[in-house]
Amino acid sequence: MSTTFKIPFSGRAHRYTDNELDLVREAAGSAEPLTQGKFRNAFEAKFRNYIGVSHAFTTCNAASALELSAQLCSFEPGDEVIIPSHTYTASAYPFLKHGANIVWADIDPMTRVVNAESIEKVITKRTRAIVVVHLYGYGADMKEIMALARSRNLLVIEDAAQALGVDIDGKKAGAYADIGIFSFHSHKNVTTLGEGGMITVHDEDFARVIPMLRHNGHTGFPEPQTDYWIPNMGNVDLPELGGRSLMPNNFCLGEVECALGAALLDRIDVINNEKRVNAMTFIDAFSGHDEFQFHRENSTRHNYHLLVARIANHWRDDFIRAMSREFGIQCVVQYYPLNRYPFYQKLGFGNADCPVADDFFDNMVSFPFHHSLSREDHAYIIDSALKVLDRLAG
Amino acid sequence: MSTTFKIPFSGRAHRYTDNELDLVREAAGSAEPLTQGKFRNAFEAKFRNYIGVSHAFTTCNAASALELSAQLCSFEPGDEVIIPSHTYTASAYPFLKHGANIVWADIDPMTRVVNAESIEKVITKRTRAIVVVHLYGYGADMKEIMALARSRNLLVIEDAAQALGVDIDGKKAGAYADIGIFSFHSHKNVTTLGEGGMITVHDEDFARVIPMLRHNGHTGFPEPQTDYWIPNMGNVDLPELGGRSLMPNNFCLGEVECALGAALLDRIDVINNEKRVNAMTFIDAFSGHDEFQFHRENSTRHNYHLLVARIANHWRDDFIRAMSREFGIQCVVQYYPLNRYPFYQKLGFGNADCPVADDFFDNMVSFPFHHSLSREDHAYIIDSALKVLDRLAG
Repeated sequence: MSTTFKIPFSGRAHRYTDNELDLVREAAGSAEPLTQGKFRNAFEAKFRNYIGVSHAFTTCNAASALELSAQLCSFEPGDEVIIPSHTYTASAYPFLKHGANIVWADIDPMTRVVNAESIEKVITKRTRAIVVVHLYGYGADMKEIMALARSRNLLVIEDAAQALGVDIDGKKAGAYADIGIFSFHSHKNVTTLGEGGMITVHDEDFARVIPMLRHNGHTGFPEPQTDYWIPNMGNVDLPELGGRSLMPNNFCLGEVECALGAALLDRIDVINNEKRVNAMTFIDAFSGHDEFQFHRENSTRHNYHLLVARIANHWRDDFIRAMSREFGIQCVVQYYPLNRYPFYQKLGFGNADCPVADDFFDNMVSFPFHHSLSREDHAYIIDSALKVLDRLAG
Repeated sequence: MSTTFKIPFSGRAHRYTDNELDLVREAAGSAEPLTQGKFRNAFEAKFRNYIGVSHAFTTCNAASALELSAQLCSFEPGDEVIIPSHTYTASAYPFLKHGANIVWADIDPMTRVVNAESIEKVITKRTRAIVVVHLYGYGADMKEIMALARSRNLLVIEDAAQALGVDIDGKKAGAYADIGIFSFHSHKNVTTLGEGGMITVHDEDFARVIPMLRHNGHTGFPEPQTDYWIPNMGNVDLPELGGRSLMPNNFCLGEVECALGAALLDRIDVINNEKRVNAMTFIDAFSGHDEFQFHRENSTRHNYHLLVARIANHWRDDFIRAMSREFGIQCVVQYYPLNRYPFYQKLGFGNADCPVADDFFDNMVSFPFHHSLSREDHAYIIDSALKVLDRLAG
């Protein structure tokens, strides 16, 4: 693709304020050390408080946080984990790496996320864990899902990578499950210089082992040291959980990213609200066009990280083609059902009974919807889409 | 330890120039996307050229680059990898994660790095790979080691995490082996905001698979796409090497770090030279004191990332105690022999025949030696150390 778009889908979701850029420069100049220091501790403390969880740990990205969560599951051979087929691949492959078999769950046709019903359908005697993804920024029905999971003694991982700041029945997305995952990737509603993630947990045993898993197995010595260098500055031990040993990683996030992340928490609610207001305007502009099926949710349960619609009449490809070629607007399709990627097919996870996910992917469009788009940009996208729709309707 | 040191060992090796800080601010404000974009490509191209290798790939840290290198080895059960016991744990544990057994190699008493002789001693029929660590910033005898490795058909990984810019017989450290590893961690001679790494390879098959291993298995579709969104924006496939499949990771480094890293390559030679000049002054100040055994190497073969000495007469602990308590100078000891950590002992790798490494660790001191120390700081450390030595000799 050599096309230059007037409005690209964009790999960057928002701009930084001058204050935030000043903070980045200041932290880069002054932080000592530049990793695993006071900015990390402050970011994690602020994040715990914002989400309402006992423990939060920064990671270098959300995929690494998901990898930690897969390690914490301590899968036995044959154990199954339920994951929506309609999500990004990082929600799923870490669980294969750590020994689970994946069973794909379908999504709700209106909300495009899993629900207790679609999960219950695929629970078996081997199910050990459930990954709930708050895709597009909409919070799934966590009360019902947690009740189901508790009744079956299953671990739940809430992948809130796209849902920072989302409220579900009075609690934040990510705060319900055993493990919460967050992303500060370049695409997300707030980003820590392009890469960054967070894992939150309630369990004290999980919280005890995560720092070792995150940083090369480092830990303290069991006995107090009379001198700081005897026998050594720091210990390296085998992370253990429930009698099983786990292997360490290096998933640390730098101090500058952490300083920025803490500052961005001050305006995530504002960004989310602005995106939702824009989404309402956008969606309502198509109220006379039943060919577009949006998920309209005018509350903090949706942060409209992305704005997507199902298009009727198999018009999807013609629609995107016209938007691209005639108006220079880059619409895309997301998320390729994971069971249809060669990666999962080759590993034996190519089968899914997820007709809603397949239908939605095959007929969906995702509009450019980054936070830094102007009012005029939005109006241009809406106006162009209405023109294309009118022509397709003939 | 609640001591506040006048001269701490420091978790940050150098300061940024105003131009570098401006660059950080500018890249944070303008990069689009904020990860995996043009700054990464430019950094990797500049790095390839600087080191003299065919392929260079940024990673989120050097431990992740070592993890990639362990994956590239494609170990069979029972395969052995030779690693110095005197190094940081990240040089070793990734190889255990990916199926190898570790055999520890001893170090040379003068250079404190492995050599062909100490490696050959522990080669067996099961040896598959050798990890050479250019510890403290000194380049090991790569010509001899590569000749040995080639004669036995062994893969070599050069861990040049501490040796960026070091010359060994006309080539850069990291350029000799099948795989080169570099670190831009907060402690290193140059740092990309505290975290960052690089892996270099010569082999085209390695180079083909690394981008997939680094970024969640992403790759292109086998057939050209008529429309950019059909069947999807990007593919996810199973990374394969020599008929074996490997599991992906997310080890991406952000654009701001990459922009900074490329700029820092312009002055790594200056920083290395300044550190070496300081090291010569430091070492020569103790020329009348045989109790200190430094490794003096006044050439670009040593970048003096760290400045260490062996102390005779079992004075080490008394020396560090006096430096700390009387002069507020934080000396430390490095690197705990890996076989003595509980991590390796519990996994069955607690035995090593490395008497030199053990002796060196038990009698060594590492001085504060970060690049931003002033001439007065160095003079104060030297003066204090001489006073302590005189008293210990008294």
